Amino acid sequence: MSEAAIAYAQKNGQRFVEELKELLRIPSVSTAPEHVGDVRRAAEWAAEKLRAAGMENVRLIETGTKKQIPSGDDNKKSKDAGRSGHPLVYADWLHAEPSADGKPKPTVLCYAHYDVQPPDPLDEWKSPPFEPAERNGNLYARGAVDDKGQLMIHLKAIESLMKADGKLPVNVRVILEGEEEVGGEGIATYVREHGETLKADAALVSDSEMFAPELPTLCVGLRGMIYTEIEARGAAQDLHSGMYGGAAPNPFVALAQIIAQMKREDGHIAIPGFYDGIEEPTKEELESWRALPFDEDEYLKHEVGSTELTGEKMFSVLERTWSRPTMDVHGMPGGFTGAGAKTVIPAKAVAKVSFRLVPGMKPADIFAKYKAFVEEICPKGITVDVRMIHFGDPIVMSSDNEFIRAAKQAMAEVFKKDTVFIRSGGSIPIVGDFVRELGIPTVLMGFGLPDDNLHAPNEKFNLSNFHRGIESVVRFLGIVGGE
Amino acid sequence: MSEAAIAYAQKNGQRFVEELKELLRIPSVSTAPEHVGDVRRAAEWAAEKLRAAGMENVRLIETGTKKQIPSGDDNKKSKDAGRSGHPLVYADWLHAEPSADGKPKPTVLCYAHYDVQPPDPLDEWKSPPFEPAERNGNLYARGAVDDKGQLMIHLKAIESLMKADGKLPVNVRVILEGEEEVGGEGIATYVREHGETLKADAALVSDSEMFAPELPTLCVGLRGMIYTEIEARGAAQDLHSGMYGGAAPNPFVALAQIIAQMKREDGHIAIPGFYDGIEEPTKEELESWRALPFDEDEYLKHEVGSTELTGEKMFSVLERTWSRPTMDVHGMPGGFTGAGAKTVIPAKAVAKVSFRLVPGMKPADIFAKYKAFVEEICPKGITVDVRMIHFGDPIVMSSDNEFIRAAKQAMAEVFKKDTVFIRSGGSIPIVGDFVRELGIPTVLMGFGLPDDNLHAPNEKFNLSNFHRGIESVVRFLGIVGGE
Repeated sequence: MSEAAIAYAQKNGQRFVEELKELLRIPSVSTAPEHVGDVRRAAEWAAEKLRAAGMENVRLIETGTKKQIPSGDDNKKSKDAGRSGHPLVYADWLHAEPSADGKPKPTVLCYAHYDVQPPDPLDEWKSPPFEPAERNGNLYARGAVDDKGQLMIHLKAIESLMKADGKLPVNVRVILEGEEEVGGEGIATYVREHGETLKADAALVSDSEMFAPELPTLCVGLRGMIYTEIEARGAAQDLHSGMYGGAAPNPFVALAQIIAQMKREDGHIAIPGFYDGIEEPTKEELESWRALPFDEDEYLKHEVGSTELTGEKMFSVLERTWSRPTMDVHGMPGGFTGAGAKTVIPAKAVAKVSFRLVPGMKPADIFAKYKAFVEEICPKGITVDVRMIHFGDPIVMSSDNEFIRAAKQAMAEVFKKDTVFIRSGGSIPIVGDFVRELGIPTVLMGFGLPDDNLHAPNEKFNLSNFHRGIESVVRFLGIVGGE
Repeated sequence: MSEAAIAYAQKNGQRFVEELKELLRIPSVSTAPEHVGDVRRAAEWAAEKLRAAGMENVRLIETGTKKQIPSGDDNKKSKDAGRSGHPLVYADWLHAEPSADGKPKPTVLCYAHYDVQPPDPLDEWKSPPFEPAERNGNLYARGAVDDKGQLMIHLKAIESLMKADGKLPVNVRVILEGEEEVGGEGIATYVREHGETLKADAALVSDSEMFAPELPTLCVGLRGMIYTEIEARGAAQDLHSGMYGGAAPNPFVALAQIIAQMKREDGHIAIPGFYDGIEEPTKEELESWRALPFDEDEYLKHEVGSTELTGEKMFSVLERTWSRPTMDVHGMPGGFTGAGAKTVIPAKAVAKVSFRLVPGMKPADIFAKYKAFVEEICPKGITVDVRMIHFGDPIVMSSDNEFIRAAKQAMAEVFKKDTVFIRSGGSIPIVGDFVRELGIPTVLMGFGLPDDNLHAPNEKFNLSNFHRGIESVVRFLGIVGGE
């Protein structure tokens, strides 16, 4: 292990923070046309830092939006049609010496993103979103945790190793994205079309959080999803509900009847065959979840804030959100949505319906079963068009993988605590792309905290986690390199 | 009967059409702030014509919007908040000589409106909306049938009687409205607060249509309504469906479950007590409906245009839309309604739900039953707020009333065909106001045709119906006056 690199990181820690502040001052809001120049400036800034750290082949890769594919990362706004893409930043260093036994060292692909969410609502920020401010050991700014702080963890771990040792313990490629908050189409296309240029043995993604403060965490499973629309059509044009109410079909009522038949009040999805082939978590995994510091009452009161939780009561909340599929409705556009009253029977209405999928479920198969069921139960007088907006495969990674093991050990050494394995209920499409297109596992090693205000006002990053993150990555690369 | 007045109307028919064109050239679009001056100009124009016809006490009555009450006439857009009101036009002539037996003549309150709908979409008009054009015996312009042509029927019937006979056969009050297309709050308030100034024995409203061409028609029943919103709340703030899907309540799914439990696929409303006390149409009324020229297949294909009709199959389409209550959903605001995907579990969602009511049902009673049922079936984890937006009583008028009998006879004489009695599935709140505040019956004598493109491009008025309308009103007033 390169204690020299860790010493370098400690010595230069304050400078690293100052550099992170430089990056945070660049308002690289990828969804905002007026910030196109800022997004590029952030890419160039990162490229320059990679060069300065000793990385090679550093370049910006242009991306272009050929067609609108709605938000890949489902946590974010869907992207504007016709916007040209923000660049990727690429760098590599592929000179790791073979092991004593002559075996070449593995290659690690480091991924992070340099774009950020819009800062709105501005008036809820205690300090301006693009003027980083330190308070109580945290650095407050838009992008602090998502994902500039974690991007800098990769860059500064690499710099520390290169400056202290003159080399890296493994081969490293870096790919940085500037469209993560707007769907990530550019990188998905690039990985699909030019995957060979990113050839690696594993990916390291730092864009997630720890289960609890001080608890080193690796995410080893992600739910997949299908995001769909049901368009219900009744009359040929909008009708007046006084004149026609009682004889003309109402598409909203039809959608309500369809949705109510698909999802029962006990959380069960009534689509035939929906649960077929689901792979349950292992007994060991379930046991480890039960050992996590999770308080359902706290979760209800302080995270959800509803009168009670819903869903399949025979499963724990972590199971319900990590390893059980579910269905949600996100919006029902159509008809009259203004203030007051308009008595229209709209000709059509839409329901935006998504399903979260778990290992053993295939998006295409679930979509087919769902579509067939909706068409079967569609009320008389109504025709439905069920369409896919986007989808992602569920992913579960074996914790028995050498890279996961290395990450577990690295984090445990830094945080002085056993690393826990969790899953996430969300989807991170780039992980699926890495698995599918590059055939490599991904280590999801994140240093955010649950209260970091991701996508919200007063986003922050815990500075202790920033420094421990750098050390964790230094150690991870060292362990993978056999040191 | 004043044959002199009828002769006067015939002789001056072409001038009446030219005057109607003058009025149609004034773009009195009540919803458009840029047309405020035009709306007033139309009011002044009508006042001037009333003066010229010999009416007395002609004046504009100012109205003001104190608060936003959404669209009273439910066929129209709800009005803008804070807009000051368009004026009413008032006139009277109260010098009708008593009958030979000394009995005073009755007073008829003539109502019409001088404001119009916006003309959009402009590019679908064959001739400009505010440049009246005659084609094939029709006059095309915005407001031709709704309601300027029918307003002019009242004015020109009065003028014909006054000019030919020097007097009217009955006492007449005229009240013209300039806010009918934006909710009619001004007149409702005026009737409520100053009803005594409109004291009359019956109202004559010409703002409706005949059941079929050449078929003299009186509308004797209107459905009532309650227009409501159900607001469903789940989590304290919007949540990410990846992170929380499966454990957090989804207000759209809850609304779907509620709506599906309220309205069955066979059209039955499952709210306990909903149908209690409904007054069925008489056997004679039902028989007369069966005799109407109504072709269900035609209605399905050319009016509704859906794959089939819905509702309570044991009732005819006319019953379903005229004398049966029903429920419709008009829009479901909330969540994400843009293009593409956003995986939000919204904190709240709203359903705009209305019920059409028939005689025997009271808005307050139905609202209470509905609210209690929604609260009872509200899914776990969700709280609902059920609120009334506006309501109107159902109305049915006895066809045995002397004014209705007079109107029936007048129209039959002019159209040389028996007058039919129909109902309307819609609501005309001013009729309820007249019944409730003034205690008088309303004669709904309209001369529009089903294909007059009310509220749509290429609105028209059949000129033969314009002239026959004037004669019908002359005869109606004469018969009421005992001539």
